[in-house]
Amino acid sequence: MANTSNQSVEFVRTGYGKNTVKVFHIRREGTHHHIIELVADVQLTLKTVKDYLTGDNSDIIPTDTIKNTVHALAKLKGIKTIEDFALDICEHFLTSFKHVTRVKVIIEEVPWKRLEKNGIEHEHAFIHCPEAQHFCEAEQYLNMTPVVHSGLKDMKVLKTTQSGFEGFLRDRFTTLTEARDRFFCTSVYSKWRYNTVNVAFDAAWKAVKDTIIQKFAGPYDRGEYSPSVQKTLYDTQVLVLDRVPEVEEIEIIMPNQHYFIIDMTKLGLSNRDEVYLPLDNPSGNITGTVRRKPRAKL
Amino acid sequence: MANTSNQSVEFVRTGYGKNTVKVFHIRREGTHHHIIELVADVQLTLKTVKDYLTGDNSDIIPTDTIKNTVHALAKLKGIKTIEDFALDICEHFLTSFKHVTRVKVIIEEVPWKRLEKNGIEHEHAFIHCPEAQHFCEAEQYLNMTPVVHSGLKDMKVLKTTQSGFEGFLRDRFTTLTEARDRFFCTSVYSKWRYNTVNVAFDAAWKAVKDTIIQKFAGPYDRGEYSPSVQKTLYDTQVLVLDRVPEVEEIEIIMPNQHYFIIDMTKLGLSNRDEVYLPLDNPSGNITGTVRRKPRAKL
Amino acid sequence: MANTSNQSVEFVRTGYGKNTVKVFHIRREGTHHHIIELVADVQLTLKTVKDYLTGDNSDIIPTDTIKNTVHALAKLKGIKTIEDFALDICEHFLTSFKHVTRVKVIIEEVPWKRLEKNGIEHEHAFIHCPEAQHFCEAEQYLNMTPVVHSGLKDMKVLKTTQSGFEGFLRDRFTTLTEARDRFFCTSVYSKWRYNTVNVAFDAAWKAVKDTIIQKFAGPYDRGEYSPSVQKTLYDTQVLVLDRVPEVEEIEIIMPNQHYFIIDMTKLGLSNRDEVYLPLDNPSGNITGTVRRKPRAKL
Amino acid sequence: MANTSNQSVEFVRTGYGKNTVKVFHIRREGTHHHIIELVADVQLTLKTVKDYLTGDNSDIIPTDTIKNTVHALAKLKGIKTIEDFALDICEHFLTSFKHVTRVKVIIEEVPWKRLEKNGIEHEHAFIHCPEAQHFCEAEQYLNMTPVVHSGLKDMKVLKTTQSGFEGFLRDRFTTLTEARDRFFCTSVYSKWRYNTVNVAFDAAWKAVKDTIIQKFAGPYDRGEYSPSVQKTLYDTQVLVLDRVPEVEEIEIIMPNQHYFIIDMTKLGLSNRDEVYLPLDNPSGNITGTVRRKPRAKL
Repeated sequence: MANTSNQSVEFVRTGYGKNTVKVFHIRREGTHHHIIELVADVQLTLKTVKDYLTGDNSDIIPTDTIKNTVHALAKLKGIKTIEDFALDICEHFLTSFKHVTRVKVIIEEVPWKRLEKNGIEHEHAFIHCPEAQHFCEAEQYLNMTPVVHSGLKDMKVLKTTQSGFEGFLRDRFTTLTEARDRFFCTSVYSKWRYNTVNVAFDAAWKAVKDTIIQKFAGPYDRGEYSPSVQKTLYDTQVLVLDRVPEVEEIEIIMPNQHYFIIDMTKLGLSNRDEVYLPLDNPSGNITGTVRRKPRAKL
Repeated sequence: MANTSNQSVEFVRTGYGKNTVKVFHIRREGTHHHIIELVADVQLTLKTVKDYLTGDNSDIIPTDTIKNTVHALAKLKGIKTIEDFALDICEHFLTSFKHVTRVKVIIEEVPWKRLEKNGIEHEHAFIHCPEAQHFCEAEQYLNMTPVVHSGLKDMKVLKTTQSGFEGFLRDRFTTLTEARDRFFCTSVYSKWRYNTVNVAFDAAWKAVKDTIIQKFAGPYDRGEYSPSVQKTLYDTQVLVLDRVPEVEEIEIIMPNQHYFIIDMTKLGLSNRDEVYLPLDNPSGNITGTVRRKPRAKL
Repeated sequence: MANTSNQSVEFVRTGYGKNTVKVFHIRREGTHHHIIELVADVQLTLKTVKDYLTGDNSDIIPTDTIKNTVHALAKLKGIKTIEDFALDICEHFLTSFKHVTRVKVIIEEVPWKRLEKNGIEHEHAFIHCPEAQHFCEAEQYLNMTPVVHSGLKDMKVLKTTQSGFEGFLRDRFTTLTEARDRFFCTSVYSKWRYNTVNVAFDAAWKAVKDTIIQKFAGPYDRGEYSPSVQKTLYDTQVLVLDRVPEVEEIEIIMPNQHYFIIDMTKLGLSNRDEVYLPLDNPSGNITGTVRRKPRAKL
Repeated sequence: MANTSNQSVEFVRTGYGKNTVKVFHIRREGTHHHIIELVADVQLTLKTVKDYLTGDNSDIIPTDTIKNTVHALAKLKGIKTIEDFALDICEHFLTSFKHVTRVKVIIEEVPWKRLEKNGIEHEHAFIHCPEAQHFCEAEQYLNMTPVVHSGLKDMKVLKTTQSGFEGFLRDRFTTLTEARDRFFCTSVYSKWRYNTVNVAFDAAWKAVKDTIIQKFAGPYDRGEYSPSVQKTLYDTQVLVLDRVPEVEEIEIIMPNQHYFIIDMTKLGLSNRDEVYLPLDNPSGNITGTVRRKPRAKL
């Protein structure tokens, strides 16, 4: 029966690989140690699909070998940034095998921060500080240039004023009141595509991170008013493209994590601006992706 | 500065909505209660982007209204299946507003199972049984027919024999040994697209689930040999397309969660086939998507 | 300085061991395979504290050895139940070493369920079904009899009627209304102590689980009214002690996970008993521990 | 039947309350905003058990009222530190009701950190920085003084040298090799009891945190050798007791999260000190609790 059905079925996509490959790399500059810890997912697409069709495994590079290869490349190439390492992995599989048509590598970096006190760095001790998660994706097709994305996620920021939401559409199901002064709390996700692989990736990542924080928070003495999450999100993107020329396209997702003032009138209390309830869900979810306009159009 | 940059930036994608909207719906047939609990993400795309560009919110249906609407629709329409409810939400926003160009709804069902004993069903008591997670996605563009996907995830199955992996490619980084008889443990993810919205969605979901289990486990008295995850994955897809005519395309992801025999020779023991180590990571990750061949080609 | 301080400091408690030791054990009865997968935490207390005081490690059984020992015992003794295996581990360390004064073992069983269809069992295929989590604790001091607890957690049950809460105390901060008919949803945690180690542990665990479900749900055709979580919790305990003579003491924790009817009057709708909001938090938390009265008192 | 059993059953412990009560408190000093966000579990024990025995709810302060009370106290008292707030909650229930015999409050603080740049603080913007989790417990019995614990958890630190483990006991199951220079990575948990309620709690918490980091990392230019986790743990406790006179007793748990050098000989590579594998499990688990010696003994 399966044989019969085979005739009427076609492949849309195939791929396989190894997920959650962990690597810790250390570079010892005398007694000063540089470390990077990461978790990689590597996926390959092969030219043939005979493994799916007939169980012929002769083209399969085992996922165990993929894991070994990631470890070996860390030894052979070192790890400068997760993006550079992802590119090394892509190159290895496309140049070592003729039947690999696509490699995709997703890497998350473990957020180790060197201990530091009064400007003095510790030689070999680090603390885990997940203020924002750095990740990247590199994807390369056979005979094509690789495409690199970097990203940042789980960076949660909150401001207690300089945010509002007014003038929105009302229908029969609208109960929300206009707000000139509300909290704005979000867990930022952003992913951007580079137009080149010649990037100082860690510096670029930091520039994007700093820009997101800057547009969210505004000047330290007075903040900057956000009339909607949409506006803040877009202004941030424009500023990133302005500052980091290697960024070609950028997506930002800013959930709106709500804090509501708790009505205490039934408790005989007047709570106008002191005690709030953090809501776990639901959350608003504002997204947007922009890119540089093609110059040819000008 | 932002103004200047605006000129050289264009939108790739916009969208916003409410995530993690929870709903519990009950239908009381006398003292016999039917329940459905779900979590919905609803995302809208609007015709204009003036909210992003200038902070003009006049086209924005607030995410709070989106939440209210989901609740109101549960009351007005009831909830037959999560797929039907997702379609109701799409239709509401596209017909109630002229400036909504796209609606996407993702719903996960909470796996409540009616208590049952010796074939007798309880009138109103349920137990949470997350054997497999049922989810769906409905997406509809203005003046287009909706596209519905259903899916299943986190269904973890294990067989202790009738699986092997032999004849694979070897290179300098390959250390894996051939295996004629190994464990096969996977946490199945599958998502499929329907070619119609007239589906008995719960029955179709169960048919896919049962087919996945059947191809994995084989006949109950002897099992069925799997020469690779790829082959089992593909055979399952072909059988699903054969059995459920409303399924047009199906993706399956089968991670290979490894169990290794523990070498106890250094402990002075011979452990050939009794004690295994479950590995958390890394895991293999086998994926594939197939669809029906267009009939026009025949 | 540390030396000086040492004089004025005394130990309250010490202990060390290996956490999250994973074991998969298989017993092959012809082609019919019996499996058990577990995760164990093992903790030892030693007679001396010189490792803490001076860094003298000569009494330390390395945690790596503890892991090896758990694996070796699985091979040497087999695993009948997680409780029996926990007792084997306690016995090993107390009899193999003279300077181990206490062993505590906590084990969780991975909820694999044999595939079954129309009463026919599969020979070697299983599905992960976390309806309720089975765990145990065994603790033994040198020259003492071991104390065994079994437990059940994360068993989430819901009933849509036959629950109320009335006649409670009211003060100035009380806004709750009396309820004669509400939902009752809870995620049951229970842990009980045996008065012997000669127990058919799996059968006893199942008896406690079934009793909890029975008191929660009541008869299948009409349920059983719960005037408070407290009362249902206590009635369950009394019934467990009545049915399982080896249980000496039993603790139950029943969080009250709230479902609120959604007020839709502002939406122009009357929603009296159809659409509810599941609340993630806060939750009520009702606890209680009872034991058999000492017979000597009679 | 239940009635019969009642005669032979006695209570060991009772208690109930509200878990996961969220509160966000803001104090506005002009445009400079001070915030604290927390999650509280509050548990009460009542004088009577008639709610358990007969379903008589007349002594029950509803858990909904407990939640309201936490919110009201945040408004009435403000929140200086989570410890002070926990004490306020204890006091409220013991003084407002005569039949409450015990209150226990557990609070976790959400790790918001004020944005700061070049020493300048932002007026109202904050970032979530979970470098270490601050929690506390306050427990008070009727007519007794309250007992306050503070704690720190999930502080993950790593050093790449200045740690060893040698001279341990060997038995037939020992395969570990001696190590003079290994990684030391741990996720610190510590909980300490104060001997007074008159504490500058935030300053004391920071002093303990800094001490733990100091003993782990040692001097920034050369580190400090750790001959075992036990020794480092104990030295840390002695130093905390030396520095923070209000701490009477302190427990520390230091899991040993392993990093293994990856053997690449089969890959034809020599990897002596560059690429390591972070292990998720199992982990060593070293614990210890010490206290000040009673002065009376001297």
